[in-house]
Amino acid sequence: MKTFASDNYSGVHPEVMDAIIRANYAHEISYGDDEITAEMDKIFKQQFGDVDVLYAFNGTGANIVSLKCAVLPFQSVICADTAHIHVDECGGPTQHIGCTLVPLPTPDGKLTPALVEHQLSFIGDVHHVQPKVISVSQSTELGTVYSLEEMRALADFAHKYDMFLHVDGARISNAVATLGCTLKEATVDCEVDIMTFGGTKNGIMMGEAILIFNKKLRKHAPYYHKQTAQLYSKNRFIAAQFKALFTNELWKEMALHSNQMAQLLAAEISKIEGVTITQKVEANALFVILPKEVVEPLRKAYRFYDWNVETGEVRWMCSFDTTKEDVMEFVEKIKELIAKTDF
Amino acid sequence: MKTFASDNYSGVHPEVMDAIIRANYAHEISYGDDEITAEMDKIFKQQFGDVDVLYAFNGTGANIVSLKCAVLPFQSVICADTAHIHVDECGGPTQHIGCTLVPLPTPDGKLTPALVEHQLSFIGDVHHVQPKVISVSQSTELGTVYSLEEMRALADFAHKYDMFLHVDGARISNAVATLGCTLKEATVDCEVDIMTFGGTKNGIMMGEAILIFNKKLRKHAPYYHKQTAQLYSKNRFIAAQFKALFTNELWKEMALHSNQMAQLLAAEISKIEGVTITQKVEANALFVILPKEVVEPLRKAYRFYDWNVETGEVRWMCSFDTTKEDVMEFVEKIKELIAKTDF
Amino acid sequence: MKTFASDNYSGVHPEVMDAIIRANYAHEISYGDDEITAEMDKIFKQQFGDVDVLYAFNGTGANIVSLKCAVLPFQSVICADTAHIHVDECGGPTQHIGCTLVPLPTPDGKLTPALVEHQLSFIGDVHHVQPKVISVSQSTELGTVYSLEEMRALADFAHKYDMFLHVDGARISNAVATLGCTLKEATVDCEVDIMTFGGTKNGIMMGEAILIFNKKLRKHAPYYHKQTAQLYSKNRFIAAQFKALFTNELWKEMALHSNQMAQLLAAEISKIEGVTITQKVEANALFVILPKEVVEPLRKAYRFYDWNVETGEVRWMCSFDTTKEDVMEFVEKIKELIAKTDF
Amino acid sequence: MKTFASDNYSGVHPEVMDAIIRANYAHEISYGDDEITAEMDKIFKQQFGDVDVLYAFNGTGANIVSLKCAVLPFQSVICADTAHIHVDECGGPTQHIGCTLVPLPTPDGKLTPALVEHQLSFIGDVHHVQPKVISVSQSTELGTVYSLEEMRALADFAHKYDMFLHVDGARISNAVATLGCTLKEATVDCEVDIMTFGGTKNGIMMGEAILIFNKKLRKHAPYYHKQTAQLYSKNRFIAAQFKALFTNELWKEMALHSNQMAQLLAAEISKIEGVTITQKVEANALFVILPKEVVEPLRKAYRFYDWNVETGEVRWMCSFDTTKEDVMEFVEKIKELIAKTDF
Repeated sequence: MKTFASDNYSGVHPEVMDAIIRANYAHEISYGDDEITAEMDKIFKQQFGDVDVLYAFNGTGANIVSLKCAVLPFQSVICADTAHIHVDECGGPTQHIGCTLVPLPTPDGKLTPALVEHQLSFIGDVHHVQPKVISVSQSTELGTVYSLEEMRALADFAHKYDMFLHVDGARISNAVATLGCTLKEATVDCEVDIMTFGGTKNGIMMGEAILIFNKKLRKHAPYYHKQTAQLYSKNRFIAAQFKALFTNELWKEMALHSNQMAQLLAAEISKIEGVTITQKVEANALFVILPKEVVEPLRKAYRFYDWNVETGEVRWMCSFDTTKEDVMEFVEKIKELIAKTDF
Repeated sequence: MKTFASDNYSGVHPEVMDAIIRANYAHEISYGDDEITAEMDKIFKQQFGDVDVLYAFNGTGANIVSLKCAVLPFQSVICADTAHIHVDECGGPTQHIGCTLVPLPTPDGKLTPALVEHQLSFIGDVHHVQPKVISVSQSTELGTVYSLEEMRALADFAHKYDMFLHVDGARISNAVATLGCTLKEATVDCEVDIMTFGGTKNGIMMGEAILIFNKKLRKHAPYYHKQTAQLYSKNRFIAAQFKALFTNELWKEMALHSNQMAQLLAAEISKIEGVTITQKVEANALFVILPKEVVEPLRKAYRFYDWNVETGEVRWMCSFDTTKEDVMEFVEKIKELIAKTDF
Repeated sequence: MKTFASDNYSGVHPEVMDAIIRANYAHEISYGDDEITAEMDKIFKQQFGDVDVLYAFNGTGANIVSLKCAVLPFQSVICADTAHIHVDECGGPTQHIGCTLVPLPTPDGKLTPALVEHQLSFIGDVHHVQPKVISVSQSTELGTVYSLEEMRALADFAHKYDMFLHVDGARISNAVATLGCTLKEATVDCEVDIMTFGGTKNGIMMGEAILIFNKKLRKHAPYYHKQTAQLYSKNRFIAAQFKALFTNELWKEMALHSNQMAQLLAAEISKIEGVTITQKVEANALFVILPKEVVEPLRKAYRFYDWNVETGEVRWMCSFDTTKEDVMEFVEKIKELIAKTDF
Repeated sequence: MKTFASDNYSGVHPEVMDAIIRANYAHEISYGDDEITAEMDKIFKQQFGDVDVLYAFNGTGANIVSLKCAVLPFQSVICADTAHIHVDECGGPTQHIGCTLVPLPTPDGKLTPALVEHQLSFIGDVHHVQPKVISVSQSTELGTVYSLEEMRALADFAHKYDMFLHVDGARISNAVATLGCTLKEATVDCEVDIMTFGGTKNGIMMGEAILIFNKKLRKHAPYYHKQTAQLYSKNRFIAAQFKALFTNELWKEMALHSNQMAQLLAAEISKIEGVTITQKVEANALFVILPKEVVEPLRKAYRFYDWNVETGEVRWMCSFDTTKEDVMEFVEKIKELIAKTDF
């Protein structure tokens, strides 16, 4: 099976799997006091500078722990209304923290200071939840990417109002591959306070890192981490996967590739009449409106998700293991199905 | 390094690792709708009969989700004061559910109806939390094992008072290996309502199963599971490990072995003057009071945990990969250190 | 001081105060097992039919307890984005229950089945919070009133999707006075499942009643009530106030009066050029856009709240003790201030 | 009816009722921005020095808000196992904060540094909840009173370990009346960090004050207060009651009286053979073991609570309106009933 459903449909990159196998030596100290985790800690510091690192099993866990470090129950997290934390985590952040999420409509999945500013009128009034975190996804759930300037503007705005900037980086690698900068330039240098660094959607078996840049957010983090069931006893097996990601920049290689496949797919699909790409293709996702008659026949051949059932908009994701052949066969199938319809 | 610190210091059994590698084929539907998870579902039904199965990343996650299915915020969970949910999860169950844990002192880590009965005087009085779950660990945190009669008596008692029986089965394999019965006889047939089935401490890389026997507890479970960040996108990689556990009864082979190593260690250590075994050795754990002068020198050679710093009681765990040679070398080391002390 | 700021600026109706004084006899059984509470229970049953009654100290407490009876942490409450539970309770319902509020924009503070329907696409999908309660305010925060048909349509819609209809009745008396029906016709007969019955904003010192019509919501209610700190030890003093409200229909007399004062104010103000009434005046609130130059000078003489600083919209509330003279003086003041401005 | 059941069975002192009536003038700014609340704020500052004051409707609400200011979800509150927060609030503090309560057995309802010290072994270990608050009741639920030295020792101990000392002062007036010192000497001067100041059980209709002495605990308090549904719109009516309490030291007059009635009852009852007083009578409560045959007949004449059904221990509370005649009639009734039994 090859699909364009999600980057978590793909398996594990062979080099990551090799790292897992190598990590399976004898006994090791549990709960992250092992040697591989220590090595990986150094690598993260090389990449990002001063940072506290925790690991989580999945993106929802990483988001909950990182937000919990930054927000109290009477405070709110401002996010796009497409944000994973708002739409796709079954209310997890709200339930675990007790805080309120304030989802804002956006045209492209991206928050701006102007959009957020409207939410600040109640600061200091006890009747209302108090904004404390701006949370963005980089790349966004709509496949768009914040520029360095946009990210920095949000951080500056957040800090001006004594708020924190949180980045859901489930696909941070795809964004940085697009931006063509270093990981540090895309995050720490933009004054991001805390972020998740995604692994599962970029070719590893399982795992996200929580990177705490702002020292104010570090003190309680290990307790929230444990309490939220994200402290892994055999953590060497997650750390080893991240070490593989940072060996020969495998994270970038995979992200670049999946981005390129999305670009190829966009280029090919845009040649087809009757197909509309609805969002800028800046990472590894495409949002496309297909002729309605084509959606179900196409789904019989390839898995993908509906985005908007009413408009016929669908989402396609490319992955580290998507090949040019996969893309071209997919495009051919679409052409073939469209040809069958009578316009 | 070989240690007697914990069964989560050991790595992954080779057959489990092979299963992980084999699961790494092409694309698969995510979030547990894959074929391996479907196969594993059938295997669990063969083993336990009618059951709903969810997976969790670790024991804390599995305990939180399973308790959340059974208890509301004004209700309480009665457990031994040595219970993992009370001592070792940084308040996770309480925080996630809002409920109260009622920890009871026990001589051997085992609850009894008589111990629990004392807690029921407030039933129906709104001023007090209402007991709803009895939670036991099988095998217990003190290395003891509930007999089938003891387990059933607790279930009957729970049901008499409209309560549920929850089993923290992080080491259920060790218990069942000792009991010499089937998994079903040890659980479903004793009228257990919900349990966790541990993998991580019995030779797999990561994962626990949540087995929901009582139909009343099933309806909301998938939502609590997702909300608690325990739904794994690439679940085939956990399911594959469990499949390996149930191939040729690997779970029993590993559990029996670690139990036997504990028996061997107990037999050898009991020959040494000045060493006291404080709990029955019924699973893979030993609790031992050593001469105080011996503890720190021994720790330089082998990792293990203090249990009671005041009395000098320590805990030793055997694992699937503990060998007879490991045990005998450990015993020799202890003998050597004791010989050096002047009694 | 007379104000048009809020119906909670006014004090206590003399007959309510007399009832409080009379309730101050000797010793009484605490926590609601007293005679006045028992009498009041009968009165509520006469008014509404079969109902379970609890009391709360204030509207926020009443809303939290009543919603907690109806919704679990993975479920959501759909409400207008002007709802008190969403805007004015500092995140209390979310924090106490762990659930998600889904606030919807409305033109007039009123939900409709069509508005709600859009939120139901994710039913049964574990990734998303599950809609379980539709919550409406009657009268609304914009001073409008649901007709009996509108209320019933929402209840029918809710029940069709296995949801509950919750009414925040902080101003239910004002609504029923407008509707000209009985309390029962406006609530139970429309198939409302659970509601709060406001007292504090209709002339009593303190207190709201929680009326649980749907039997499914009753079982856990007393525990949630106590746990949420809303069980009052000397409950006779709240019950006595409600008894006064239901003596000679004082609740209706006061509500009718405050509604009439709002009508009078609307009638007079609509004669003034440059003043725009923005919402239908159906209860005791007016929403008005004043010439911007008038707002601050008027505020020096009378307290009231801004509703929308950008448009100059303000909110005026009439109360049981607002007199015709108060209204006419207020109108004169506005005329005088407007006359001073140069149009 | 006169009872010895609880000090919340009694009504309202006439001077308090007068204050309520006087507070019922015209319109007032809501939510505590009124003049009476401002006056009361000054009075509290006169009594206690630098302090932030919030009000709550009842003791459970006051405890929840004050603890929420001091403890995060991964932290714990150490209290006596007789503490109201542990036994009598239906899990409210745990549910609202997500924290863990650690109840310790005590002979007399009083914690000591030695009792608490045993709980500190896990500080800094992420697997375990972290102790952050020592919570004591003054006077205790067993009618005993901490001396100034005992209170200060607990505060010093708490601060040594970076913890806070919380006082549940539902009956602080009774304790201070016994200690014969000022309110400030009994609290601020002992380095208490945060306390509740009880009104409901000392002759007012309703209300407790939350007194925040430690500046570190003040910042978030108003938001937790609102979110926990304890911000009262017509707060003048609570503030007026407290003002009555502090006029001519009414709080002390009432507390002294109820204490004296308890002393009288203790003196008389101790003359009766077959009756055992089980706790020191230091405030307004007596704990007594009666001949078992006497308990039920006595209950037919007077309400009171069982404390320990197994031993026949009962609790008697005296109140501000308990008279000498009430006490002597009660004693006579007991003598009469005991005389009827055959020893």
